[in-house]
Amino acid sequence: LRLKSADDAAHAIKAMIVRGAPLIGATAAYGIALAMREDASDAALDRAHDMLLATRPTASICAGRSRACATPAQPSARGARETRLGGSRGDLRRRCRDLPPHRRARARDPARGGRKRIRAKLNILTHCNAGWLACVDWGTALAPIYMAHDAGIPLHVWVDETRPRNQGASLTAFELGGHGVPHTIIADNAGGHYMQAGEVDLVHRGHRPRHRNGDVANKIGTYLKALAAKDNGVPFYVALPSSTIDWTIAGRDIPIEERSPTSF
Amino acid sequence: LRLKSADDAAHAIKAMIVRGAPLIGATAAYGIALAMREDASDAALDRAHDMLLATRPTASICAGRSRACATPAQPSARGARETRLGGSRGDLRRRCRDLPPHRRARARDPARGGRKRIRAKLNILTHCNAGWLACVDWGTALAPIYMAHDAGIPLHVWVDETRPRNQGASLTAFELGGHGVPHTIIADNAGGHYMQAGEVDLVHRGHRPRHRNGDVANKIGTYLKALAAKDNGVPFYVALPSSTIDWTIAGRDIPIEERSPTSF
Repeated sequence: LRLKSADDAAHAIKAMIVRGAPLIGATAAYGIALAMREDASDAALDRAHDMLLATRPTASICAGRSRACATPAQPSARGARETRLGGSRGDLRRRCRDLPPHRRARARDPARGGRKRIRAKLNILTHCNAGWLACVDWGTALAPIYMAHDAGIPLHVWVDETRPRNQGASLTAFELGGHGVPHTIIADNAGGHYMQAGEVDLVHRGHRPRHRNGDVANKIGTYLKALAAKDNGVPFYVALPSSTIDWTIAGRDIPIEERSPTSF
Repeated sequence: LRLKSADDAAHAIKAMIVRGAPLIGATAAYGIALAMREDASDAALDRAHDMLLATRPTASICAGRSRACATPAQPSARGARETRLGGSRGDLRRRCRDLPPHRRARARDPARGGRKRIRAKLNILTHCNAGWLACVDWGTALAPIYMAHDAGIPLHVWVDETRPRNQGASLTAFELGGHGVPHTIIADNAGGHYMQAGEVDLVHRGHRPRHRNGDVANKIGTYLKALAAKDNGVPFYVALPSSTIDWTIAGRDIPIEERSPTSF
C-alpha cells in the first residue's frame, strides 16, 4: 500500500493497516512530511499534526517530533533544499528517514537485555506482535527470542492468538515460522492454564507507551496474563525501547481510550 | 442430526456436536440405551460405557448411571417389555427419558438462587454457554438472567466470545438475542479491562463437574476471569445443579485432561 498524503497516513494508523508502536510512530512522522509536500504553512502542518494525533495515542510522540522539526523555518523556506535553521523539506524528510534506523537501534536494547535472561530450554508466552513487522526491524518482545534462538538456545513460544485482531496468530506465528522458532498458537484463554500446569517459564511482550511511574499500557488481555503470571510466580517482562517512555504522563492519567469492544 | 447408535452418541460428544454438561450427560445416557438396542449383552454395554466414558469427562456420570440401570436384569431379559428387577429395555429408555426433566428441575435451582442476587441495573459478564442450548431446558448460568429480565429488572450482559469454539459469540448471544436481553459480545481479552473500568457488577457462569472440596473445573479462560474478579472485588458466581457435584474426587485430583490447545 502506498501512502501518498497525511490523510493516507492517518487512515493507515486508524484502520490498523500499520500497527505496532514503532511502525505507527514512523508512519505518523512521515505523515507530517507528506503534509508539508502539499502545503508547508503552519496552519496546514498543525492540521496534519492534530489529525495524526487523533488516530491513536501511540502516534503522538513521533507526530509531535516531526511537526517540531519544521518549526524553525519560515513556511516559505520549508520547500527549500536547505536552510541554516533547519526545518527545510529536506531536513524533515531526513528526520523521518533517520527515525526508523534510530528506533531500530533502540529496539536492539531490549534484544540484548532480554537475551541475557534466556539461558536454558524455555517456554515463553507472548501476546500480540512486537517483532519486525511491528517495529520496522528486529522487534521488541521478539528480538531477544530471535537472538536466543540464533545462539542455539532451545526454546518454544506459546503464541497468544490475540483476539479480536489475531496479531499473534497471523503476524507473530508468521514471523516465528519464517525464523524457524518452535511455537504453538493458543487461544488467549489458555495462557493461565499453561501457567498453572508449569508450562510457561516466562512471559515476554512488547508495549505501548510506558509511563514515568513504570506503568505500562498494552494490548488488551495483557492485564489478565499479568495476573496469572503473578498468581503462578512466572516472571513477566515488558520489552521496550527507552525512547517510548512518555515522561509527560503517569499511568493513572491514561485515558480509557478504547471503550468499544471492536476498537481494541 | 439423528443419533442412531452408541457410536453416533460418542462421536457427537467427542466432536462437540452436543456440548454443555447437562446435554452431554443426556446424550451419554441415551448412548447406553442405543447400544442395548443392538446388543443387550454385558460385554456390549460395557464396551459402549467405556467408549462414552472416553469421550469427555463430563459424560461419565450419566453414562455410568445409565449402564448401572441395565445391570439387575439378565441380558436375555433386557429386551423384554418389563421385568420385576428392572433393567429391561423399557426401564432403561424410561430412565433416559426421565433424565432430562430431572436435570431440568435441578437446573432451575440455580435460576431461583441466582435470581435473588440480581436486583438493580446490572452488568453481568458471562463465559461460554450455559443456557438452554447446553442444558436441555432453562440453563444454569443464564437461567437467573432470564428470570431477572422477565421480572423487569434492567440488565446488560457482556458475552465473552469464548475462543476457540466461540460458544459465547454463537450460542449465548443467539439465546440472549432471542429472549430480548441486552448484551454485547466482547473478546475474551477484554473482560479484565471492563472490570477495571467498573463496568462489570458480577460474573455469572456455568460449570463443568464441581468437586467435593468446592473446586470447580470449567471452560478454558475461567481462571483468568476469576483472577481479575478477585483483583477488582467483583463477585464471581458459579451456577450449577447440585446433581453435578462429583463426590468421588477432590479438585486437586482433576486430570489435566486437555493439553492440546485445539481440544478445549
